Amino acid sequence: MGGWSLVYEEFSPEKEGLRETLCTLGNGYFCTRGAADEAVDDGIHYPGTYIAGGYNRMKTEIDGHILENEDLVNMPNWLPLSFRIEEGSWFDIRQVDLLNYRQELDLKKGLLKRDIRFEDGEGRRTRVSFRRLVHMSLPHLAGQEMRLTAENWSGRMEFRSALDGRVVNDGVARYRKLNSRHLDPLESKRLGEDGICLTVQTHQSRLQVAMAARTRIYRNGRSLSLDRRTIAEKGYIAQLIGVKIEKEAAVTVEKVVGVFTSRDPAVSEAGLAAGKAIRQAGGFEDLLHSHAMTWDHLWQRFGMSFEYKDGQQGEPISEVLHLHIFHLLQTTSVNTMAMRLDVGVPPRGWHGEAYRGHILWDELFIFPLLNWRMPEITRRVLMYRYQRLDAARAAARAHGYRGAMYPWQSGSDGREESQSLHLNPRSGRWIPDNSRLQRHVSAAIAYNVYQYYQVSRDTEFLAFYGAEMILEIARFWSSIATFNREHGRYVILGVMGPDEYHEGYPDAQSPGLNNNAYTNVMAVWVLDRALEILEILPVDISACIREKLDIGEEELDRWRDITRRMRIPFHGDGIISQFEGYERLEEFDWEGYREKYGDIQRLDRILEAEGDTPNRYRLSKQADVLMLFYLFSAEELREIFQDLGYPFAYETIPKNIDYYIRRTAHGSTLSRVVHSWVLARQDRERSWKLFNEALFSDVTDIQGGTTPEGIHLGAMAGTVDQIQRCYTGIVTRNDALWLNPCLPEELATLRLQVRYRGYFLRLEICCDHIKVTSLRNREYPIRVGCGEEIVELNGRDTIEFPLG
Amino acid sequence: MGGWSLVYEEFSPEKEGLRETLCTLGNGYFCTRGAADEAVDDGIHYPGTYIAGGYNRMKTEIDGHILENEDLVNMPNWLPLSFRIEEGSWFDIRQVDLLNYRQELDLKKGLLKRDIRFEDGEGRRTRVSFRRLVHMSLPHLAGQEMRLTAENWSGRMEFRSALDGRVVNDGVARYRKLNSRHLDPLESKRLGEDGICLTVQTHQSRLQVAMAARTRIYRNGRSLSLDRRTIAEKGYIAQLIGVKIEKEAAVTVEKVVGVFTSRDPAVSEAGLAAGKAIRQAGGFEDLLHSHAMTWDHLWQRFGMSFEYKDGQQGEPISEVLHLHIFHLLQTTSVNTMAMRLDVGVPPRGWHGEAYRGHILWDELFIFPLLNWRMPEITRRVLMYRYQRLDAARAAARAHGYRGAMYPWQSGSDGREESQSLHLNPRSGRWIPDNSRLQRHVSAAIAYNVYQYYQVSRDTEFLAFYGAEMILEIARFWSSIATFNREHGRYVILGVMGPDEYHEGYPDAQSPGLNNNAYTNVMAVWVLDRALEILEILPVDISACIREKLDIGEEELDRWRDITRRMRIPFHGDGIISQFEGYERLEEFDWEGYREKYGDIQRLDRILEAEGDTPNRYRLSKQADVLMLFYLFSAEELREIFQDLGYPFAYETIPKNIDYYIRRTAHGSTLSRVVHSWVLARQDRERSWKLFNEALFSDVTDIQGGTTPEGIHLGAMAGTVDQIQRCYTGIVTRNDALWLNPCLPEELATLRLQVRYRGYFLRLEICCDHIKVTSLRNREYPIRVGCGEEIVELNGRDTIEFPLG
Repeated sequence: MGGWSLVYEEFSPEKEGLRETLCTLGNGYFCTRGAADEAVDDGIHYPGTYIAGGYNRMKTEIDGHILENEDLVNMPNWLPLSFRIEEGSWFDIRQVDLLNYRQELDLKKGLLKRDIRFEDGEGRRTRVSFRRLVHMSLPHLAGQEMRLTAENWSGRMEFRSALDGRVVNDGVARYRKLNSRHLDPLESKRLGEDGICLTVQTHQSRLQVAMAARTRIYRNGRSLSLDRRTIAEKGYIAQLIGVKIEKEAAVTVEKVVGVFTSRDPAVSEAGLAAGKAIRQAGGFEDLLHSHAMTWDHLWQRFGMSFEYKDGQQGEPISEVLHLHIFHLLQTTSVNTMAMRLDVGVPPRGWHGEAYRGHILWDELFIFPLLNWRMPEITRRVLMYRYQRLDAARAAARAHGYRGAMYPWQSGSDGREESQSLHLNPRSGRWIPDNSRLQRHVSAAIAYNVYQYYQVSRDTEFLAFYGAEMILEIARFWSSIATFNREHGRYVILGVMGPDEYHEGYPDAQSPGLNNNAYTNVMAVWVLDRALEILEILPVDISACIREKLDIGEEELDRWRDITRRMRIPFHGDGIISQFEGYERLEEFDWEGYREKYGDIQRLDRILEAEGDTPNRYRLSKQADVLMLFYLFSAEELREIFQDLGYPFAYETIPKNIDYYIRRTAHGSTLSRVVHSWVLARQDRERSWKLFNEALFSDVTDIQGGTTPEGIHLGAMAGTVDQIQRCYTGIVTRNDALWLNPCLPEELATLRLQVRYRGYFLRLEICCDHIKVTSLRNREYPIRVGCGEEIVELNGRDTIEFPLG
Repeated sequence: MGGWSLVYEEFSPEKEGLRETLCTLGNGYFCTRGAADEAVDDGIHYPGTYIAGGYNRMKTEIDGHILENEDLVNMPNWLPLSFRIEEGSWFDIRQVDLLNYRQELDLKKGLLKRDIRFEDGEGRRTRVSFRRLVHMSLPHLAGQEMRLTAENWSGRMEFRSALDGRVVNDGVARYRKLNSRHLDPLESKRLGEDGICLTVQTHQSRLQVAMAARTRIYRNGRSLSLDRRTIAEKGYIAQLIGVKIEKEAAVTVEKVVGVFTSRDPAVSEAGLAAGKAIRQAGGFEDLLHSHAMTWDHLWQRFGMSFEYKDGQQGEPISEVLHLHIFHLLQTTSVNTMAMRLDVGVPPRGWHGEAYRGHILWDELFIFPLLNWRMPEITRRVLMYRYQRLDAARAAARAHGYRGAMYPWQSGSDGREESQSLHLNPRSGRWIPDNSRLQRHVSAAIAYNVYQYYQVSRDTEFLAFYGAEMILEIARFWSSIATFNREHGRYVILGVMGPDEYHEGYPDAQSPGLNNNAYTNVMAVWVLDRALEILEILPVDISACIREKLDIGEEELDRWRDITRRMRIPFHGDGIISQFEGYERLEEFDWEGYREKYGDIQRLDRILEAEGDTPNRYRLSKQADVLMLFYLFSAEELREIFQDLGYPFAYETIPKNIDYYIRRTAHGSTLSRVVHSWVLARQDRERSWKLFNEALFSDVTDIQGGTTPEGIHLGAMAGTVDQIQRCYTGIVTRNDALWLNPCLPEELATLRLQVRYRGYFLRLEICCDHIKVTSLRNREYPIRVGCGEEIVELNGRDTIEFPLG
């Protein structure tokens, strides 16, 4: 990777899954995995095109259990564009002699390019160049172009341009036993001279997806009038076009595709809309022009740049960070807003089938990046949760709680989508999955709402939607907490923390842990914020919301009481116990297992296959207690602990970090992000090392095969956010924006642009100063602080703070 | 009408259509017309339930022309709930002796009640009380309750609770030749013990609508376990329940209904969602409690109250105004926002089939009311236009223009939905309809975007959506304007103004008028605003938008030039000509026609039936030139005219008003609103009279039959807005809020609450002072002015201005 591109110089079938995922193209509305064209459909991997927020449910029987899975919708494949020479067999990259191969993902323009030069069995040498895009500002359009040159031959060729709805979700090996054929064909038809259209409907959710393709062939820039045949089958349609080829006279095949679903705004019927889209669309070059411009505008908002200190120029860090931003903006974008899509941000993007496109807590790591660049996207995506507030209320009621209990995995209608059984590929066993006991997901949602408000000051969102979510989540925490006379404190029993390697006590009958420290602190924090929100809102609105939710004084008293008397377990010398009784677990033989297994990131599978369980040991998949130091400043934590009547010395922090960091397997890519963050100020070297590992999670597929199942968006956004917030030390406090930079040793200068309360602020951070420039603006003044100094910013202005 | 209710004390089949419409219940998601229950389905009128923004297209051949109409979707009827005694015939209100009858729409609670006492052929006397609601905060739910008491008999009864999808759109007589059966049945099934579910799909647009109904019967508050039979047919399902009745022991039948469409957020499949909704819903009383609370909160935001001067207490003005607000909030509401519905505001609400639910320019009269009370609704509804910006661009291109040309009538996908032929019921002829030449609709959209921004200061909306609409509309005006060397000015040819009685010059070959003054001034105003917007936006955003739309300096120069050299025609002594050559038309014989026809509101139909045409005369259906004095202050107009180099003395205004008011037929209900407004300060008595006529447009159905086809929402909202803005004189100017009241003679005090830039402001306006109270608030300070005085308001505060 150099500059702004991801480049592969050889064709390697065994790495195709990884490349496809990293070369995904998308626009927040739909995503298409990158590498495969029709020629490599078969035997390597089927290309996946996923629609944002589209789901379908299917039932499968496994070991006598009925599993009901809600899967993301694998749309028809719009890519197939193939050719054959003189009625030979269709091009297959594995059946020819490859003379050259080059694939490049141009991040700046959002363009995927592939150049192939090959010789076939008859000695014919041919060059083919592909370009492909999924349009960023015309979200229903995608396009590809194939330019073919016969180097040493002339003759007849046939091109085949197809839309294929006979696809299945088979991108994740361990899900393959589950039903995954989601599409029923509705219609395959020709449209005019050069168009074809395919309409399908998901089997259970009845979501209609229509695709239309317009295929044109050019020589010397002139469109050729050619014979076309259309093959229409159930769920498949193709157009075959014959062309005479002259040696060295390139022909260009252009396929422009329109995609619509029945949920889109401004649509009469999806097929009609798709047909109209390809009638009105420009050619590939036109599309590329507006598409690249949109990316250019996005990079102005989302980009960042570095200067390294002398001799440190070699690191490709900024390139990887741009790849991460690129993938985030393909998953959730301006189109998510403008098309008011009903979607959350899935942990694996819309890039693969892992977690089936469900929404988990990973948004916690993703929203900060959006909040500081384009908070309007966060607002739209938070609506996904608001729309499912009633489902969360029903879930709380069904479990005997009050308020809103959000599901660990959320899909179309907000019910719990976590699997009840999962497959351990190592043992081949289907084992019970208790991950749904991770009640802390609701706290993450409240945290996300509050952080969005802090940066945007969007009182309107708070008044209509945000406050109701925070209050109902607070109420849930109040109702799941019970008062324990022995401790004289409130406790929360039978839950799981973020560390998924602990789902219960060894040998206990039922799953769940008591007083998970992370959960309990988050519960207190949510209750604090709920009380605060009622004060922030205009008094009339606050009164209406309280009346609507029936929140009386007595309930508020209980909330206040919990914020003073929640139990947090400790052990040893100021170590926050991950949960009650953690200290009674055995220490784990890290060295022994590392020796025996090498990669021990997935200790859960290793131990289960051995008939053992991680529940017995002091080990964790990922940060759990340490999440607290990631989410909160030391000041905030001290306040929470002091209110609870627990001692909290600042030395507690490094002590806890040290304790847990030694007991972590990093089975989640989020883990390194958190650990790197919490070490940033106390152990810059170690932090930088972890940061670099986190950074390459996907690029080098450090989990050995999980990236092809979908990128890890939490780690992607989290690493960018580490530059953005951790190294700049940017926080909001007391109606001001504060900067407290802590650049890694390697960096000389960091430049980025953030958005704060309507302002665009350009930040330049060096070792010895910070420069903040505000663009012309009519917003109300804001205050920006650094160290002891605080300055009012009004309209166009530049401030400089010297650094000590 | 007294208090907050609409009451009818007698059953009158001939007025049923009007009552149904005025008693519509809705929540911005769907609306149900009021009066009919199953017993009166037949022969009087079929009840209509319309889904907001749902459309379906059908083709019909008329006189050899194929007409393609896009109709609003008439959902399945959820109301049918009937009964019979001892296997007799089903209750039919026309077949019994009515002893008492009372129907009441309770505006405060959004509840429709009906009490019937009757004696049947066997001498059995029975009392039945109905209550019904469409829930305002649980938008997918509706409920009804029937309480039945046998006064002098005991015996067996059977209740029938049904969902009926065999409905057609037949509410407008003159559309009945057009295809109007939109629903195809998908599924009719029983759900558990007490539920039924019906799923249908619109024929062309494939919109799925599912309804589930849960029917329970109670005696003394206890649910009865009863025998139930289910009848399921294609597009229809009913449950029949037998009950033993004891004399004077009331039974209560409760029907709770869940409604979902395939476009709703947070839905897996509409039928599943509807089934879940009725399983989780509370009983009728629970629903009523939360529903009434929501209405109470809405009234806090939207209400207004008066005190009359001595001896003027009798006028039911405030009641009618509340009815208007009630209907507006049923058409577009908090649910429109929270469910991010893709809808505009149709001129007839979702209350009837006139204009087929299409969106016209009436929003111009409706948004101001929303802007000053709950601007978030306007924002959502403006998105309807943003979503169709591409369609408007395509329409402009197709007509050889640039920019965005919005359709006169807009439906699902933003294409032009105006009919090409319409029926004159008076002559029975289908005649060409040129109303689509009303290009001024695009100016209204730009006006709406700008006004929303003025009140809300929502720069984010402007940056992402609003600016693009205004700029593209400006570009359209620039491209439709041509430079005329003779006049040395720009001209706009071949359009129609708001006055639909003039669609061309008498005896001209093709329709359209030149230099419609209203259109030309609006075009200039839009171009001015477009130039302003580019300055208001942050400089980066402005640059990106200009690059995206490819707006160069040359284009901006042309825009500036047009704002200085657009032609506005005048005639006589400072009279703005409605269009070029207006003064050459004949004067109309108003007296003669009034004598001959009585009601001459629809002169177009009268003249066409006589073989004549309004095109020949100086008459208008509604305000056209006068719209300018309605939309703009004298200061604004003077500025526009001065920039154009036309004289503009203030005396021009009364002179023009006087000229045109004498030539207006008021064939549109909007007309009186405008005339009353423009007269408010110069002729209070006449203004008040017109205001009162406008106020009673629907309540008394002054157009003689159009209200049953749907309320007139522009007039409804316009009359409320006249109190809100015209009589308070509230305007935004130079970043301040100004008040300049002008109460009608009859009023002593006016109280209302407005929202301005995040503030809630309570206004009290009396003859001798204004009081402005701001609630506790954390927003940035605002400035409020009156006369020469301007005051800064910050947080909780009260200001008083004395009035001279």
